[in-house]
Formats: sequence, structure tokens, C-alpha cells
Amino acid sequence: MIDDAHLNALGSLLDDKGLIVEAADRVSYETGARFDHGKAAFVARPTTTDEVSAVLSYCVRNGIALIPQSGNTGLVSGSIPDGTGEQGVLSLDRLKTLFDLDIDNRTLTVDAGFRLSEINRRLEPHGLFFPIDLGADPCAGGMAATNTGGARFLRYGDVRRNTLGLEVVLADVEGTVLQLGGGLRKDNTGPDWKQCFIGTSGAFGVITACTFNVERLPRQMATALLVPGSDEAVLELLKRFEEYFGADLTAFEGMSGTAMAHALHHQPSLRNPFPQKELPDFVVLVEVSRTSAPRTGDMSLDEHLEQALAELWESESAPLLDAVIGSPTEMWALRHTLSEGVKTAGKLIAFDLSFRRSVAMQFRSQMRTRLAENFAGVTVADFGHIGDGGLHFNLVVDRSIDMNADGVEAVRDYVVTAAVEEFGGSFSAEHGLGRKNQAQYDRYTADRLKAMAMHFKRATSPGQLGSSLL
Amino acid sequence: MIDDAHLNALGSLLDDKGLIVEAADRVSYETGARFDHGKAAFVARPTTTDEVSAVLSYCVRNGIALIPQSGNTGLVSGSIPDGTGEQGVLSLDRLKTLFDLDIDNRTLTVDAGFRLSEINRRLEPHGLFFPIDLGADPCAGGMAATNTGGARFLRYGDVRRNTLGLEVVLADVEGTVLQLGGGLRKDNTGPDWKQCFIGTSGAFGVITACTFNVERLPRQMATALLVPGSDEAVLELLKRFEEYFGADLTAFEGMSGTAMAHALHHQPSLRNPFPQKELPDFVVLVEVSRTSAPRTGDMSLDEHLEQALAELWESESAPLLDAVIGSPTEMWALRHTLSEGVKTAGKLIAFDLSFRRSVAMQFRSQMRTRLAENFAGVTVADFGHIGDGGLHFNLVVDRSIDMNADGVEAVRDYVVTAAVEEFGGSFSAEHGLGRKNQAQYDRYTADRLKAMAMHFKRATSPGQLGSSLL
Repeated sequence: MIDDAHLNALGSLLDDKGLIVEAADRVSYETGARFDHGKAAFVARPTTTDEVSAVLSYCVRNGIALIPQSGNTGLVSGSIPDGTGEQGVLSLDRLKTLFDLDIDNRTLTVDAGFRLSEINRRLEPHGLFFPIDLGADPCAGGMAATNTGGARFLRYGDVRRNTLGLEVVLADVEGTVLQLGGGLRKDNTGPDWKQCFIGTSGAFGVITACTFNVERLPRQMATALLVPGSDEAVLELLKRFEEYFGADLTAFEGMSGTAMAHALHHQPSLRNPFPQKELPDFVVLVEVSRTSAPRTGDMSLDEHLEQALAELWESESAPLLDAVIGSPTEMWALRHTLSEGVKTAGKLIAFDLSFRRSVAMQFRSQMRTRLAENFAGVTVADFGHIGDGGLHFNLVVDRSIDMNADGVEAVRDYVVTAAVEEFGGSFSAEHGLGRKNQAQYDRYTADRLKAMAMHFKRATSPGQLGSSLL
Repeated sequence: MIDDAHLNALGSLLDDKGLIVEAADRVSYETGARFDHGKAAFVARPTTTDEVSAVLSYCVRNGIALIPQSGNTGLVSGSIPDGTGEQGVLSLDRLKTLFDLDIDNRTLTVDAGFRLSEINRRLEPHGLFFPIDLGADPCAGGMAATNTGGARFLRYGDVRRNTLGLEVVLADVEGTVLQLGGGLRKDNTGPDWKQCFIGTSGAFGVITACTFNVERLPRQMATALLVPGSDEAVLELLKRFEEYFGADLTAFEGMSGTAMAHALHHQPSLRNPFPQKELPDFVVLVEVSRTSAPRTGDMSLDEHLEQALAELWESESAPLLDAVIGSPTEMWALRHTLSEGVKTAGKLIAFDLSFRRSVAMQFRSQMRTRLAENFAGVTVADFGHIGDGGLHFNLVVDRSIDMNADGVEAVRDYVVTAAVEEFGGSFSAEHGLGRKNQAQYDRYTADRLKAMAMHFKRATSPGQLGSSLL
């Protein structure tokens, strides 16, 4: 029980806006981005690493559980408290002072509370950006804690790849502050401990600052939508584009016709890229981009894309049924509306899966048939990052079907079992770990690895920290 | 004391070539790539993961220390035994059966004992390669255990970035085999434990197989040598090339005139790229490359490089004193002979440092002056990966100077202290951890991180494994 004495003591560690206790003020910190809701005993909002340390130390010494929360845009209930009212939220939304850009090194050191959009707004005048492309707008700390991926992973990788340093506060009696790496790109002077805090949702410590690699903003960009003739053709197209464009291929995204239809219905201002006919069953959005300005004597990227498509038209091994070159803004608007679109179409059962690239298309083909056979009224409305094997495998349950929680659980179990056990996939590609997929961690993690996690937890943050039990 | 009973027992776990005891046969396993030498009680050479597990289990149960060794090309005494004759070598040179290429996924799963050169020879017919570019020819397991970097890090990253999965055998009573990740590019289903075995030189477990990302082989390549007008100009040139060529910039290497002179002297068949005049003080080797074949209507890469240089000639902020475009083969031959060249010039005191890119040039400028002032007969003959801040800061002691071990130690201490404490650099950029830099680990690692390493060691491999104490 977290009584007034504790609240007063915590308040005394923070400034006058540093502790929220009133129910009305807590709501946004208790509400997740998708469906979920919890109840917090309090919300602590430190403005400095020292304050984070003081709060953690106090809570460990007094047996108080804390859920770290940065942007609160997660989809697996990793950043909100449970329903007991016995957990405090440690919000990092006021931890946003440090913004240290090293232009020559192409690195940025930021406090955990900066939003991705603000980071990119401040980098833009320097011709730079943080190359994690998402629909949501998370904060730096949460992106590192969940190891976010996104739509340009194929070119730039995930947050792990772009993290050169972390500041972490442990949930131990002292509230120890660790500095793990700086802006060095090559550094092998011991175990790279920062890796253990990336993608573990705060279970081992609270990330308070990050040193990120930043990239030059593209100055040329061209996009096309491709309609492949078969599943195999999708992989063949991917190989051809990788060969033709190398690292200039910055996205290779899959969109199902179903998901596009929901998006076009949900957002009528979107232009249908295939107005003359039925929506294709499956479309690939390719993006190519370059950091250089167009040069005299050189072909433009649009011309390159046209040439590549002309060659592919002739190809027997990578049959194209259709292809349109068009505005990147319009094509990405469609891509980024898919998620909202499918949500409005009916009850959503969402999965964040990934596979070997060689397997992802097989999985979705098979599952479309098998789900239709086994679960009435369930339609696949998926999209994903075919270039890296990621699949936002969304199912929409028709409004006419009254599916209860057990029914949803049966579908969920069927899909995850097939993805992991039959197709060697991952049940959590890029949304991290939280209460939502704890059961899957418990089911699919080897005992020895669970034991390693518990050992490491004791060696770092023996206090109660984070929503995941690991 | 490792007696005959132990040797017989170990021999019975392996095939008839699996255990080496004779002194003459042990020599190559006891001799490091640079200067160092040890004495092994035996060399175990398993051919399967099960045999590795059996050997580790036996040694843990009987208190026998093991040094894992794969290619034995390391430079920090990480892969050879000490001089006591009480350690066994666990060689992985016969563990080379599995070679599983997934072309669509662009991943390769290999046993630890495959050499880099053999991996690339077998990938080449598929138009693929493992993008770690080194002078040495290490094996897969050792590359992962040391997190090797190399000359094309700027484009492709280090081994860590290219590792999608590991098989690891622990030094515990059971000789536990862990499967850590497969060929998935996005997978956030728990702590990414494989990261703890990368770059820790076998202290936590023996890497027996790796799943690597592989890349498409470049089909166009162009190189130039640039003579920058100042240290600041080097960074300005790097920025301009990154902007102009994006990810087509695959190397940006620095070479001191001193190192080039030693290389040209050592290998007279090398062509001097600046035959008309004195060798420049500092030269940058830039490489640009593309995976696509040259296309009709497009400029060639050579033409692009010429255009970029023409623009730079006009530039006031990035002054160029000289520039030559030339054969990649010739230019890389010079670059890859620097290491051998400086070794023959006198007593070598070698450092594998890294810095923020913004700091690397400052360090070398300052140190050239300060070393000359403080240590007679010591000349800087460095080269390095300016694009990622890595500096092979080699010092040559003139043959006329009789510098003893204490003298060398004084120089070593002076350089490392300046690099780490004044310039925020790393004392081990890409050669990993071994006996050679153990004292530096001890000196510069926070107590809390040392304690974490000991905890993790107990949770993984409580047996005596590896040359580093962490």
C-alpha cells in the first residue's frame, strides 16, 4: 500500500510539478495506445537523471513497483501500470534538456523524453535525421527500450543498430547511474552492456539518455507500387531491386488489397492508385532515395526507377502484373493509413510477426486459406516490411460475428503457434515486450535463458521495475 | 596438473585426430599472430557441437582451463594459452561442416571454423559476400567473438551488426548448447543474449556457429587518393563524400606518409601513387561502389568521382592539395601493405584506438608533436578508418634506440592515457579483448560493470574459459 507518507517523500525528491496523484491527471499515463488501461498509485515526472536516480532508489528501498514510461505509444502494454493501483508510473516526459548534436561524428545525444518528431525537426536544418520511420511518435528512451524497427529498416536498421551509447539508471538501492558507451562507432573494451537494455522494456534499468547515429536526409526520392504476379515474384522483385539500387533501396513494403480497401474507405481523401479496376490482392511499395542532389549528366531517380521497371516488364522470372510510379507523399500516405484503416473495419486481432524473408510470403498465403477454413468471419488485412521479413499480420473479425475473448484467444493461439512452431518466426518483431506478449515469452523461451534473465535482473535492477517479468 | 588420465578421457570424447598432445604439433596453436607465445597442456579439436559440449563439460567438472581458438589471427593474445602449460586450447579449426546459405533471406549459417576467405569464395558464385574487409583471414567464430570491424565498416558495420544468430556452448557442468536467434532480422522476444557473446572473446561461452547477414557483391567500384589541405579538411571531405555518394561511399581510409613510405620500401612492387614529388603527410583513400552494373545513359562511377573531385577543387572549405583517381586493386594493395610495412621499419608499438570522428584527427596531430617532444626516436606511422573514427596508431622506434620493456610501457601508457582520458577514445576499437589489454580493461572499467561481468560469467560459464578475466 502506497500511503501518503510515501507520496510526500517521493514529492520531496521532485519539483512542484514532479508528482501527480490526482486521478484525473493520471488518466493519460494509465491509458495505452491500443485498448489497454491500468491504474497508477502515482506518476513521478523527474526532469533530471539525478531525480530519476532518487526516485528509483526510494522505490527500491520501500518495495514500490515502477513502470517506466516515455512516449506511451507502445502496443504491447509495456508502458502502463496494471489494474491494481499499486504500481507507480515513472514518466520521462519532462526529461528533455540535453540535445547534443555532433555534426562531424553524425551522432546525437538526447535525453529520453524527446519525441521522434521533435528530434527530426531539430535535425532537419542540418540536413540530418534519425532514420527510424514510424507511424507513431515515440520518445527516444522508449524507442531504445523496445528496439523499434519501422519501414526503412532495410536501409537503416533498427534502433539497436543506431544506438552508440546509453545512460541507464538501475533499480537498485543506490539508483546507480551507468554510462554505457559514448559516440564511438568502434569500441570493444568489454561486454557491450548497453545491448542488454535495448529491447528489454525497462526490466533491467531505465534509459535516461541515448547517443544515436543520425543520417543525412535524402535529397532525391522516387516511389512506385508494384503488383507482383505471384508470391515467388515478390522475392524475385526484392532481389532485383537490391541489385539494381543497392543501398538506395530504402523501403520494400507489402500492402494487402484488403488493408488498402479499409484505408481508402476510412480516409476518403486518399487517392486510389488503381482507379480503373479492382484493387490488387497484394501490392509492393518500393522507395529509392539518395542523399545527393540530382547532377547534370546523370539520370534522375525517377528515370532509374522507370528503367528498372522496363527491364522487369520483360522478365519472366519476376512477373509484374502492373506498376505505377507516383508521388512518394501520396504513396506513403496510403501506407501509413493502413493501420488506422484496419482498426475501423471491425474487431482487430493484431500480430507483429517476423520471418526469414524467404518464408514471410509463404506464411501469409497459407494462413489466408487456413484461417478461412477454421475461423468464420475472420479476414486477413495485413501489411508489412517484406524487405526485412516483418509482417503486421492483422485480422479483422466481421461485425456480424460475435467473437468473445475465448474466441479471440483461439485465433491468437492458432496464428502464433503456426508462426513460431511451423514457420520459425518471431511473435514480437518490433513492438517489444509487455504484458500483452508475456505469455508468449513464457511459452517460447528456453528455461536456461529465463534463468539468465533472472540472474541479470538481480545483477542490475533487483527492484520491481517494468511491466515484463522476463 | 593435467595428467594422462585426463588426456585419455578427453581423447575418448573426440575422434582419432581430435586431441593433440605432442609439443611439435602444438606449436601453431601456441603461437599468436604478433610476438606472443604460450604453452598448452593439449589441443582439443572437436568436429561437432556435441563434441565441443562434451569437452567443455569434462573440463568444467575437472577444473581444467580452456582457451577457445578459431583462426588464431588475433592481435591481443586472446586466442593462445598462457605460459604455464596448465591451459588447454579448444581449437575450432575442424568445426566446419555446416554452410547453409539462404539466398532469398541473404543470410548464411556457418560453423565457427570456416575462414573468411573460404566463406567469400563460396558466396561469390551467388554474387554475395560477407562484408567484413580485413587484412587477416580469421574464422567465423573468432570474428564474432572479437566483433571485428575493418575497412568497410562505414558502409557495412561490424560483425555485431551482421550477426543474426549464434550457437554457443557454455562452460558449465552440462556443456549447455544455446541457440540464440536464427535468420530473423527483426526479433524482440526477450533480451538479445547473443550480443553478450559477441566481442567478449569467449569469456561467457564458445561460439560454435553463426548466422550472418551477407551482402550483394559490388559490380562497379572506383577509388581515389586525396591529399587534404588540413586536418579540418579531412572531416569536410568526409561530409562532402557522404552527401555526394550516400551509402555508395564504402571506404574512407587515412594513410600517413610515414606508413606509406615503409610499405613502398617493404614491397618494391607497389607503385608509388605520387612519383613526382615527396609523399604527402596524410592521404585519404576513398572507395565508392555499387551493386548495380553500369547502365546506358548513366554516368559511370569513375565519372561521378571525377565530378565530385572537380567540385571539391573549387571548394574553399574542403581544400584539396592533390587527388588521383586510380585502380582499386593498386590502391588497396598499398593500403593493405601498411601493416606489414611498419612492422619491418623498427620496433613497433601498436595501438588499436578509436575516437569520435570529430576527434580522431585532432588526436593524431597533437600526439605527433607531443610524442616527439617526450620520446626520442619514436615516429608515428599510423593509418586508420577515418570514416568510423578508428586509428591504427602505430609507433615505430628507430633502430638506433635501445628501448627496453619499461620504456615501451611508458610510451604505451602515455598514449592510452591521452587517448582515453583526454580525447574520450577507446583503447580497443576492433581487435577485441585479450591478455594484451587486460590491464586497460581493469583500469578503465567501472566497478559496477566489472561486477555485472562476474555475475553474468557465473550465470553462463562458471568454468575457466577464455584468456580474459573480464
